[in-house]
Amino acid sequence: MALKNDLLLRTAKGESVERPPVWLMRQAGRILPQYRALRASLSGFKELVETPHLAAEVTVQPVDELGVDAAIIFSDILVIPEAMGLPYEMVEKRGPLFPETIKSGADIKRLLSGADAANELGYVYDALQETTKLLDGRIPLIGFSGAPWTLFAYMLEGSGSKTFSKAKRFLYIEEKLAHQLLEKLTETIIAYLKEKIKNGADLVQIFDSWAGILSPASYKRFSAPYIKAICEAIDEVPITVFAKGAWFALEEFGKMDCNVIGLDWTIVPSEGRQRVGTDKVLQGNLDPCALYSAPEKVAQLTEQMLNTFGGRHIANLGHGVYPDTPLDSVKAFVHAVQAHRYKNN
Amino acid sequence: MALKNDLLLRTAKGESVERPPVWLMRQAGRILPQYRALRASLSGFKELVETPHLAAEVTVQPVDELGVDAAIIFSDILVIPEAMGLPYEMVEKRGPLFPETIKSGADIKRLLSGADAANELGYVYDALQETTKLLDGRIPLIGFSGAPWTLFAYMLEGSGSKTFSKAKRFLYIEEKLAHQLLEKLTETIIAYLKEKIKNGADLVQIFDSWAGILSPASYKRFSAPYIKAICEAIDEVPITVFAKGAWFALEEFGKMDCNVIGLDWTIVPSEGRQRVGTDKVLQGNLDPCALYSAPEKVAQLTEQMLNTFGGRHIANLGHGVYPDTPLDSVKAFVHAVQAHRYKNN
Repeated sequence: MALKNDLLLRTAKGESVERPPVWLMRQAGRILPQYRALRASLSGFKELVETPHLAAEVTVQPVDELGVDAAIIFSDILVIPEAMGLPYEMVEKRGPLFPETIKSGADIKRLLSGADAANELGYVYDALQETTKLLDGRIPLIGFSGAPWTLFAYMLEGSGSKTFSKAKRFLYIEEKLAHQLLEKLTETIIAYLKEKIKNGADLVQIFDSWAGILSPASYKRFSAPYIKAICEAIDEVPITVFAKGAWFALEEFGKMDCNVIGLDWTIVPSEGRQRVGTDKVLQGNLDPCALYSAPEKVAQLTEQMLNTFGGRHIANLGHGVYPDTPLDSVKAFVHAVQAHRYKNN
Repeated sequence: MALKNDLLLRTAKGESVERPPVWLMRQAGRILPQYRALRASLSGFKELVETPHLAAEVTVQPVDELGVDAAIIFSDILVIPEAMGLPYEMVEKRGPLFPETIKSGADIKRLLSGADAANELGYVYDALQETTKLLDGRIPLIGFSGAPWTLFAYMLEGSGSKTFSKAKRFLYIEEKLAHQLLEKLTETIIAYLKEKIKNGADLVQIFDSWAGILSPASYKRFSAPYIKAICEAIDEVPITVFAKGAWFALEEFGKMDCNVIGLDWTIVPSEGRQRVGTDKVLQGNLDPCALYSAPEKVAQLTEQMLNTFGGRHIANLGHGVYPDTPLDSVKAFVHAVQAHRYKNN
C-alpha cells in the first residue's frame, strides 16, 4: 500500500526531501493523557504489550494527538529474552526485573533461539497487523529490537543497574559463553525483525541502550559485530542503529550496512556527522529535558538543532521522551520541525 | 615535611618520572576486609565520615594493604550541601537521599556559602590532620570536592537518578536561579578546598560525577565555567578535574588552569590526549570491571593501558573501584603499574 506520508522512508533512503521527518522515541506512552487513562484500566504494563488490539491502539495515539511522521509499535525490548525462555516482570516505578538470570553455560544452552524463539512472539506480529489497519497508510510504522549486548546486559544483571557490573564481569571471565549468548540473541533478533517486517514494519530500529557502559575495546568485541550482523541480514527495509552513549563507536556504525544512525543528546551534530561520515542519515538529538521549557523556547531550541544538522536528518530527541514532559512542549517540538523547510528545496 | 614517595606530585607537576604513580578512586572502602569490619561496628556511613580518627584510619587502610602511591581522604561529596544547610542521609543499598530539596529562590537564598559554609566542616579538616599524622610523610594525601553541577544535581533531585530530569529541568526553566545556586556552590567549594589544603591535602581533585547527563551546550553553560573558576582560585597545590561522561568537554578542560585531567573508561587514551592537548597530565582509565578478571589477566590489561597512555600519566581506574572487586586483582593492578618503567628513564 502506498503511504500518504512517506517522508521518513524517503529520508532514510537518502533521498532529497523538503523538511526532516519527526517522531519521538517513547511517543506512545505516559506523555499522552489517553495512554495514562488506558493504562490505569489495566492490570499492568505487560497486559498492554501482550494484547494486540491494545498495543495497536496505544501505537496510534501519538499519531492522532501529535501528528508525527512515523508510528513505532508499542512493545518492550525484553520480549526477546522472554521468548528465549527467560521471563521478565515490569515492576511499577522500579522497572524491569528478571526473577531468573543467566549464570552458566547450561542456562545459555537451555534458551530457545532464532525462529524457534521468534515464533513465540505472535502477539507482537498481531499488534503490527492491527496497527497497520488503524494507520490505513497514513504514515510508516517502525519496528524495533534491543541490541544483543543490551538484552544480554539485562539477562545477566536481572534488572537495570548503574554499572551493569555483573553483566560486564561475565564478559571478562566467561568470554566464550558470552559470545554463545550474543550469537543466540543475534539469531533471534534477526528472525524477529524479519517477522516484524512481514507483518507491517516499514523501517526497523536497533536500540543499544546500554552501549555507553562498555569500554570502546569491549564494545568492539561484544556489541558492534553483532549489530553489524543484524544490519547485514536485514535488507527488506531501512534500518536504524541507536546506541546510547556509544559516541566512540560512531565511525564503526558509519561503515555498517545500515541507513540511519541515531545520536544521543551528548553528541554535537557536527561532530556526529564527522565521525559517521557522509554516507548515512542521522537521527536525533535534542536533550529530552529541553522539552520542559515553555513551547516558544522549545521551538527555538528545535530550530537551532535543525540548523546544526543541516540535511540528511530525522528529527527526534536524543533519548526517549520523559514521562512528565508537558504535552504542549512536545507539540511545539513536532510543529517546529514540520514548519522547517530546507533551503535547497 | 618532605615526602618519602612524592611520585604523584612530581607527575602532576609535569616532571619527568621513572614510572606512573597509581591509586584507585574509592580505594578506601568496601574492597578492603578491614574497612568492612570497621564499618560493621558502626551505626552508619555518616558516623565514619564525621568521626575524624575513624575517617583517618579508613583513609590509611589501602595505603597499608595495597601500597598505593597516594591516599585520598575518606569523605563524601555531599558534606558540602549539608554544610550549606541541606542535610543528606545515606540509605543502605540505595545511596544518598536529601529529605528536603531545592525548589525555589527562597530555598537558595537561605543556604550558607563560602567560608560560612566551609567552616561547618571542621570534622573533615580534623580528619585530614589525623591522616597526615598516620601517613607520616610516606605518600601524598589527596583532598576532593564534588563539582558545582554534580552537587546541584543532588540538591535538586534529592537522590541519584538515571536522568536527573528534575535538576536538568531547573536549568531550562529557572536559568537565573540555577546560576545563583551554582555560584554559591562554587564559593563554598573554593573555601572548602583551601581549608583542606591548609590541613594537609597535597593535591585536590574535583569530581563532576554527573557531567555526562548534560548536553554539551548545557555543560558549557552550567558546569565548565564553575570548574574553571575553582581551578583559577586554587594555586596552592596541583588540581585534577575528573568529569565522568564529559568526553565532549575535554578540549575545554585542556585550556583550564588545572594540572591533571581524569578520563573515564569510555575514552581511548590516545583520543583523550588529542582532545586535551599536550599541556596536561592524564589520569585513568582502566574499565573497573577489568578487575573482575584473574590477577594475571589484570596485569596484562593494565600493561596494555600503560602503553597506550605512554607518559604524563597517573594510573587509576576510569571510575571508582566497585565494592565487590576481588582484592587480589586490585593488588595485581597496583603491582603491574609499580613494575612498569618508562623507556626514557
